[in-house]
Amino acid sequence: MSNDRLAQQLGFILEIDRLKLVLRQTLLTDRSRRENSAEHSWHLAMMAIVLAEYAPAEINLLRVIKMLLIHDLVEIDAGDTFCYDTQGNLNKADRENQAADRLFGLLPPELGADLRSQWEEFEAQSTEDARFAAALDRLQPLLHNWRNGGGTWLQYGITLDRVLERMRPVETGTPALWSLVEDILAESVAKGFLKPAPRDVSIAEVASQG
Amino acid sequence: MSNDRLAQQLGFILEIDRLKLVLRQTLLTDRSRRENSAEHSWHLAMMAIVLAEYAPAEINLLRVIKMLLIHDLVEIDAGDTFCYDTQGNLNKADRENQAADRLFGLLPPELGADLRSQWEEFEAQSTEDARFAAALDRLQPLLHNWRNGGGTWLQYGITLDRVLERMRPVETGTPALWSLVEDILAESVAKGFLKPAPRDVSIAEVASQG
Repeated sequence: MSNDRLAQQLGFILEIDRLKLVLRQTLLTDRSRRENSAEHSWHLAMMAIVLAEYAPAEINLLRVIKMLLIHDLVEIDAGDTFCYDTQGNLNKADRENQAADRLFGLLPPELGADLRSQWEEFEAQSTEDARFAAALDRLQPLLHNWRNGGGTWLQYGITLDRVLERMRPVETGTPALWSLVEDILAESVAKGFLKPAPRDVSIAEVASQG
Repeated sequence: MSNDRLAQQLGFILEIDRLKLVLRQTLLTDRSRRENSAEHSWHLAMMAIVLAEYAPAEINLLRVIKMLLIHDLVEIDAGDTFCYDTQGNLNKADRENQAADRLFGLLPPELGADLRSQWEEFEAQSTEDARFAAALDRLQPLLHNWRNGGGTWLQYGITLDRVLERMRPVETGTPALWSLVEDILAESVAKGFLKPAPRDVSIAEVASQG
């Protein structure tokens, strides 16, 4: 390799190919297989482009897209933790921090630090950009489960109250899309794609308990 | 759905999920399976972020990333055409234009027109942004074949002269990375990952015949 800097960049580029091997719980819309985290990240970046107008404030679309493209990289080492896996989520932060040390550490220092700071911003949900990005990350599996007739909701017996809790970042990150979430959940319950809350309350009632 | 505009946007978002089902010839770096066009697009966008400093002029990184994210969408209808498939490439443009009509036509008109114009810009290679994006699109499978010991080069008996011809957009779109391409190809021939040109010429000689 002609120089060390470029060699580090290529090393990172080849290493992150492994994100294509990390499987999420979510099924593709045709139900043929589980989605991997690389193609999921692509889908989210496309959603940011198509849905940017619903962001609540002035977002920086380039920063949002960068966050979405890198937000799951740590899963190369830490694996994907299913959002409804209470046990697995206990030590998730530690595992992912170690992964971030290694992966962003492959890059030339200032480039690695820049990407890491954007990953941390996404994790901390400390800016409008990060909150919009997180809203899309929650919305996408909702769309998949709705389209494919229940998906992971039915597979794991997830109830409406848990999905509503999971969708909170949409309400805060993209309030303009919250009524969409409510419509999709109401339709999903009506069609049997999603079980109602354990005590059979209405969406409005569950939502108001947020 | 609460309004037609949002319904169109969601229709597009759900439709493009099918790009995850379009398989390219390129293998993942661990050789476990072929790469699909959605995860490939993610990988290219990551390369744009990591390698932006090698672009020859002032590029607009957001535009480059958008082009890379959408550049293969037409394959949902038109399929992936292997770059060394002479026959398949004859009617590729027609098939892809029809696909673009349908897919970008799913979106609200001004949004569809914007994405389509960026796809056309990528196809026409009419700007620095498009030429940098295309260079990355050529470089990525080279990196994969180099890493995985020959990949599609050996599988289809591709020779050095054809790969060099295929890599021309790197020379024009990112001259700073051209010596990298030459180094990788020289190493690949030396290690038997790639057959030399039919008449056993040197890389420099083949390159100078451009």
